Amino acid sequence: MIQSRAEITVRYAETDMMGVVYHGSYLPWFEVGRTTLMKDLGLPYRDLEAQGFLLPVLEVNVKYRRPAKYDDVITIVTTMREKPMLRIRLEYEVKRGDELLATGHTVHTFIDREGKVVRPPPQVIAVFDAGFAAADRSATT
Amino acid sequence: MIQSRAEITVRYAETDMMGVVYHGSYLPWFEVGRTTLMKDLGLPYRDLEAQGFLLPVLEVNVKYRRPAKYDDVITIVTTMREKPMLRIRLEYEVKRGDELLATGHTVHTFIDREGKVVRPPPQVIAVFDAGFAAADRSATT
Amino acid sequence: MIQSRAEITVRYAETDMMGVVYHGSYLPWFEVGRTTLMKDLGLPYRDLEAQGFLLPVLEVNVKYRRPAKYDDVITIVTTMREKPMLRIRLEYEVKRGDELLATGHTVHTFIDREGKVVRPPPQVIAVFDAGFAAADRSATT
Amino acid sequence: MIQSRAEITVRYAETDMMGVVYHGSYLPWFEVGRTTLMKDLGLPYRDLEAQGFLLPVLEVNVKYRRPAKYDDVITIVTTMREKPMLRIRLEYEVKRGDELLATGHTVHTFIDREGKVVRPPPQVIAVFDAGFAAADRSATT
Repeated sequence: MIQSRAEITVRYAETDMMGVVYHGSYLPWFEVGRTTLMKDLGLPYRDLEAQGFLLPVLEVNVKYRRPAKYDDVITIVTTMREKPMLRIRLEYEVKRGDELLATGHTVHTFIDREGKVVRPPPQVIAVFDAGFAAADRSATT
Repeated sequence: MIQSRAEITVRYAETDMMGVVYHGSYLPWFEVGRTTLMKDLGLPYRDLEAQGFLLPVLEVNVKYRRPAKYDDVITIVTTMREKPMLRIRLEYEVKRGDELLATGHTVHTFIDREGKVVRPPPQVIAVFDAGFAAADRSATT
Repeated sequence: MIQSRAEITVRYAETDMMGVVYHGSYLPWFEVGRTTLMKDLGLPYRDLEAQGFLLPVLEVNVKYRRPAKYDDVITIVTTMREKPMLRIRLEYEVKRGDELLATGHTVHTFIDREGKVVRPPPQVIAVFDAGFAAADRSATT
Repeated sequence: MIQSRAEITVRYAETDMMGVVYHGSYLPWFEVGRTTLMKDLGLPYRDLEAQGFLLPVLEVNVKYRRPAKYDDVITIVTTMREKPMLRIRLEYEVKRGDELLATGHTVHTFIDREGKVVRPPPQVIAVFDAGFAAADRSATT
């Protein structure tokens, strides 16, 4: 299991006339979460795209428990439970302090610049292997 | 079953650097879909909010099949299969002509201005009853 | 002078916690305005990009007079007063019926895929010439 | 003169199919800038709204020099040059390291919950007075 934490402060632009954060604003937050996870792994998504590999979203799910509000400090906890094969599944928790505001997951696949589904490149597999190995070591310590 | 169709043209603002529509842009489209369905039923969501009833999103799910592109003409088909009790479930199909680009659903509940979960007001139940009765009649004709 | 009209219905996603449309939401509306103007001219912006010409925004200005609200039907009037040379200037009026809600303008230049500023391609100049000639004819009739 | 600095990392959601940041994404960044300036002054905008005072945008202007890109670390420098009377004018610089990417300004006024223009409340004037006095002191040292 690989896990990362990212922090953001809610922007006014992210609210709607219900007075709280617009439900669609959580999707960019999930993205901040996985950008951080990839960077923590030593594999910035920006570099991956520069090498011609894209990770489009195949599926997204969000469950909303309590509304986030303007200027709240929010933590996004992103978890990769399984070493990815053809598909990558990521899980998210959106928290305000200890309070859980929302949970969700996304599923991704690797495609190339032409949009064709491809296997994850060797350098990516190596990074995930190393990440899971390090996580296992720290879990058993 | 109650069903509505809405049409939008993809905006440049809705794309991302992958060259296609950003996956988060589908959520406002779903919203256009349910705004249209409520209006078709004779119960504009704007009026509902003016009466103090809000319909926040409890859950959202999207499955992406093919990317939508800038300037595409998109049809959003919104379906309410079951007469809502405490929760409203809506299903969505995002299409470009006959081509299915994405599917999804949302779940909602009624709350009041203070955020307390409430039963749907009688005028709303009456509208849904009439909508389903009309749909049944046209289905059996 | 070339002028186009486009119509949109305000989305819930475009509001903020002030209860009205978020000021940043007017920029995608301006874009809908200029997409429509280009299409009316017979030169869809999508085709222009496909030919390798981009029209990035160099400058944007918006003056807000009255707030637009959720579900309002909005007309965007887009005007090109001068035949473009190296730069294109477009002016916008955002209206709800006869009521003027906002005005603004954008300035653009042509660049190629590498980001280098280029002259407008001949086919584009021809389209603008034809558009202004037609506008002059109808103005003097 | 009062000045604040805020830092953000560009999100994928903020890009468009031109491969760089969508021009409209700078408006939420300006907002992050002024939220930070108000907080630095000891007058969080959230508290101001809770007291019934809103600061809608009357005018916004942005000039784009160079594109920001996904995952760039961006600094927003927000400056209030004049002590506000009925209107507040803020200026912005968007920078990537020392490189200036965009400049702009916004103009605001105070309104109450009913949308009526009001004078800035005494506690707000006191905060601005103190902020400018402190800035003058540090400028003459």
